[in-house]
Amino acid sequence: MQRLINVQEDLLAKNRLLASRNSGYFDARSIMALNMMSSPGSGKTTLLERTIKALGEHKPVAVVEGDQQTLNDARRIEAAGAPAVQVNTGNACHLDAEMVLEAVKKLDPPPGTLLFIENVGNLICPSLFELGENYRVVMFSVTEGEDKPLKYPTMFARADLCIISKTDLLPYVTFDLAQAKDHALRINPGIQFVELSALTGEGLDGWIRWLQDRSS
Amino acid sequence: MQRLINVQEDLLAKNRLLASRNSGYFDARSIMALNMMSSPGSGKTTLLERTIKALGEHKPVAVVEGDQQTLNDARRIEAAGAPAVQVNTGNACHLDAEMVLEAVKKLDPPPGTLLFIENVGNLICPSLFELGENYRVVMFSVTEGEDKPLKYPTMFARADLCIISKTDLLPYVTFDLAQAKDHALRINPGIQFVELSALTGEGLDGWIRWLQDRSS
Repeated sequence: MQRLINVQEDLLAKNRLLASRNSGYFDARSIMALNMMSSPGSGKTTLLERTIKALGEHKPVAVVEGDQQTLNDARRIEAAGAPAVQVNTGNACHLDAEMVLEAVKKLDPPPGTLLFIENVGNLICPSLFELGENYRVVMFSVTEGEDKPLKYPTMFARADLCIISKTDLLPYVTFDLAQAKDHALRINPGIQFVELSALTGEGLDGWIRWLQDRSS
Repeated sequence: MQRLINVQEDLLAKNRLLASRNSGYFDARSIMALNMMSSPGSGKTTLLERTIKALGEHKPVAVVEGDQQTLNDARRIEAAGAPAVQVNTGNACHLDAEMVLEAVKKLDPPPGTLLFIENVGNLICPSLFELGENYRVVMFSVTEGEDKPLKYPTMFARADLCIISKTDLLPYVTFDLAQAKDHALRINPGIQFVELSALTGEGLDGWIRWLQDRSS
C-alpha cells in the first residue's frame, strides 16, 4: 500500500509540473481552458455541441476529447462546427497534462480561444490530475442521485462550477435539487451552480453567461 | 509512460494472486460472489435492496459496499435486511482483492451465501482488478446513452451479464435499446442481458431467475 501511494505521489508531482507548463502555454495565447468532468453519460458532449452553436460565431472554440475508446465525440464536436482532437486513453482512466498539451498543439488554437477539455467519464481519477486549466467544471445529472457530491468529494471539492444536467427528467425521477446543492456546498462552500438540460436547451443561458463573464 | 505501465502490471499481478486466494475462500464456503460494476448513480444499491427483499428468506445474502466516501450504502443494505461492510477507498478508484477479503472476513458469511460486491461507481478501473468473483455484472442505465459499451470496452468485454437499468425512463430519453445491446455484443459476443427498473421493480424477475439459475 505504501508503495502504491509513493508511486501515485511521484506521478502526480510529475503531472503537476507539466500542468504548470500547460498553464503557461494557455496564458501565452490568451486561451481560457475548462476541464469538464462527470460520470459517463451525463451529457458533456451534448452540452458542448450546444455551446459551440451558441458561442461559435463570437469566439473561437476548440475541444480536446478524452475517452477510453472511440472517435465518436470528436466527430460530434466537428459536426457542431469546432475543431477537436480525440485522445484515446486505453486503460488509463483520466487525461493527464502531457496528453492535453500534445492534443492542444495539434489543434494550434488562435489567441483568445475558449478551450474545452472533455475528460474521461469518471468522477474519481480525473479530479487528481491537473491539466493547467483555468476552471474546473463538474457535471452531474438528476438521474444520478443527490448523494454524488458526498460519495465523490475530491471531485466536488476542487470544482469551480457544478452543472446539474438533464433537468428535463426532473418530473420522472426522485431527485431533491436543494439537497443535492446542499451536499455539494458542504464539500465546497464556494462552488457555483448552473442547472440545465443539454437536450432541450433549458437553462443554457445561465451557462453561456457564466462562460462570458469569465472569458471577456 | 513505460514506468507507469510496469508499475500497473506489478500491481495487477499482485492483485491477481490475492484474487485467486479470495476465489479459494469463496469456494470453501460455497459462496457465490458477484462483482457489481457501473457508472455512479446507475442504481446498483437500489437493485440490491430489492434483491435482498426478493431472495432474503430463501438464501443468506451479504454485501461488500465500495465507495470513495460515506457509509450511506451499507446503511441502506442493512435496512433492507442483509449484513454489509462498507469499504471507503479514499483516493482509490476501485476495490481490490485485499480490501474485499478483509471485508468478507468481517462479514463471516455462512456457507451458501450469495455475496454481492458493489464496486466503486466507475466504468474503467474496477474492470482491471479481479476480486475472485464468480460472475461480473455491469449495469448501465438508459440515461447514459447506447454508446457506453464502445467507449468503455474493457468493462463490457469481461462481464458475464449486462443489466440495462432505469427502463422506467425509456419513454423520456433518446435511447435505442437494440443498438445498445448490439454495441455490447460487438465487444463481447457471449454477454447476456437483463433489462429492469430497480425503482418500479419491472423486469426484476429476469434478474432473480438469472441468479437462481447460477446459485442452485
